[in-house]
Amino acid sequence: MNPSKILIVGAGAIGAFYGALLAKAGAEVSVVCRSDYRQVKQNGFQINSATLGAWRFQPHRVLAAVADYQDAADYLVLSTKITPDSNLPELIRPGVAASTAIVFIQNGVEIESTISRAFPGHEVISGLAFICSNRTKPGEITHLAYGRLMLGNLPEGVSAKTAQLAALFNQAGIDCKTVADVVTARWQKCVWNAPFSPLSVLSGGLSTKDILDSQEALVRAIMQEVCLIAQALGHRLPDNIIEQNINNTHAMPPYKTSMLLDYEQGHSMETEAILGNAVRAARAKGVACPHLETLYALMKLKELQVAKTA
Amino acid sequence: MNPSKILIVGAGAIGAFYGALLAKAGAEVSVVCRSDYRQVKQNGFQINSATLGAWRFQPHRVLAAVADYQDAADYLVLSTKITPDSNLPELIRPGVAASTAIVFIQNGVEIESTISRAFPGHEVISGLAFICSNRTKPGEITHLAYGRLMLGNLPEGVSAKTAQLAALFNQAGIDCKTVADVVTARWQKCVWNAPFSPLSVLSGGLSTKDILDSQEALVRAIMQEVCLIAQALGHRLPDNIIEQNINNTHAMPPYKTSMLLDYEQGHSMETEAILGNAVRAARAKGVACPHLETLYALMKLKELQVAKTA
Repeated sequence: MNPSKILIVGAGAIGAFYGALLAKAGAEVSVVCRSDYRQVKQNGFQINSATLGAWRFQPHRVLAAVADYQDAADYLVLSTKITPDSNLPELIRPGVAASTAIVFIQNGVEIESTISRAFPGHEVISGLAFICSNRTKPGEITHLAYGRLMLGNLPEGVSAKTAQLAALFNQAGIDCKTVADVVTARWQKCVWNAPFSPLSVLSGGLSTKDILDSQEALVRAIMQEVCLIAQALGHRLPDNIIEQNINNTHAMPPYKTSMLLDYEQGHSMETEAILGNAVRAARAKGVACPHLETLYALMKLKELQVAKTA
Repeated sequence: MNPSKILIVGAGAIGAFYGALLAKAGAEVSVVCRSDYRQVKQNGFQINSATLGAWRFQPHRVLAAVADYQDAADYLVLSTKITPDSNLPELIRPGVAASTAIVFIQNGVEIESTISRAFPGHEVISGLAFICSNRTKPGEITHLAYGRLMLGNLPEGVSAKTAQLAALFNQAGIDCKTVADVVTARWQKCVWNAPFSPLSVLSGGLSTKDILDSQEALVRAIMQEVCLIAQALGHRLPDNIIEQNINNTHAMPPYKTSMLLDYEQGHSMETEAILGNAVRAARAKGVACPHLETLYALMKLKELQVAKTA
């Protein structure tokens, strides 16, 4: 069997790390990488993982744009941050051959709809990453903790191609599960992210522990709204999901959310993928979510303030 | 007629400024002043007003504690910031003689209830100040702009004593109106403060203009909740109050709220007086106010973060 051809679009902290693992497992991994193109073209990536060791990842090809790929990928992995102004379909179109499955490895809810609509004949695989990983300098990725993945097809199910991708990740030492309803899994993750990510930023940097100890009622109200939106979309979440998230967070050590890290490091934040998409889904379904609406509006103000002082 | 005897409790940017004006109008004004006691005892206050000129205000007596007053004030003016842990009745009790009217010059809603309950036989006068004034160094007050006052009795009406106090302020060059329903006036002011004060702080420092241009829907939703709470308490606000506030704010130059200035200068913020009291009133009356609840909880997180990094 020929090695799988994989094109990573957005080879940052997440994309380069998972790409390096797929290469380790024998896939032919090329990367599109904009900001660090020169550095990576010359030297590849240095991967420093707290759990999997350190190694150099030399992509099969390093490209400045998707159009330069000129090949038929089995998987096109999208791991750029989704921002409201990125035209994703146009960005990836040159890399989507007839046989290409489009893979998301990104945070948030309802993030795949534009692509699903733009490429109706293509398999879309949605991936959730539970990972703490940073681009520490050009071409250097530091993987600090976690790393497990969940993959599933849209709108549901697990195809042979998805199972094969999961097998590659597992082979490289990453726990990768396949799930039949990955959309529900996304909403489940959102139950935690929707309160803690914005509250950590808007409070000015509090840990998950401080937030929960001080404002558990607000955290629960936000989680409840996420459950209602998911349910309105046909993704009923487990009855005990709020209790479970509260208990798990109480049991965790104080934790800085990745949105807070993004904010502190001056990176763009996943406001739209996590809050904006949830709020838009709620509006479309007529579900009231005043707490989420408030947080979303406040995050937009925060982003405006960041842009003004940049 | 003997001059009115006035005791100012909390001679900061607001209390010292209005005390200086009352002294100018001929009242016998003493002050209780904790942090700047030595400085003020020796040299009095230097008042630098953008509209009324500069002058030195030497109080009749400068005291470190209310108990040192040992006289019967006609008016005891409370202009300390109201924080949840201050025991106001115990603080002022030694200064409240049989004939003393208790005067509030403070921001917020429902701020007088503890005092009204603790001193049932006493006249309580509630005052709203529209002012921009700062303590620029120990014993120095810089009055930047505005300054007008509204006074009225609790629960309603305007007594002769209230009219007399207003006359003193007007005599000193400050526009001071008396109003029969001062509680309604407080809620009217809250319609503006409830959105703009916390949003300016939580956004990280945006002006009123940026907030309104970017998130008018949120601003309106918060204003609407304040109107509903006021109405539930029997203080129906004018039908056009939201439109009026929105239009006025659009017409104003970009403005930093006093809560934002307090935050930037490391002072305690009026979270409880403005948001906490509004939310508690809503809960007591069974009025849903999820936007205000979210802002209140976020401001408590912000205060926690400030305390942790102090």
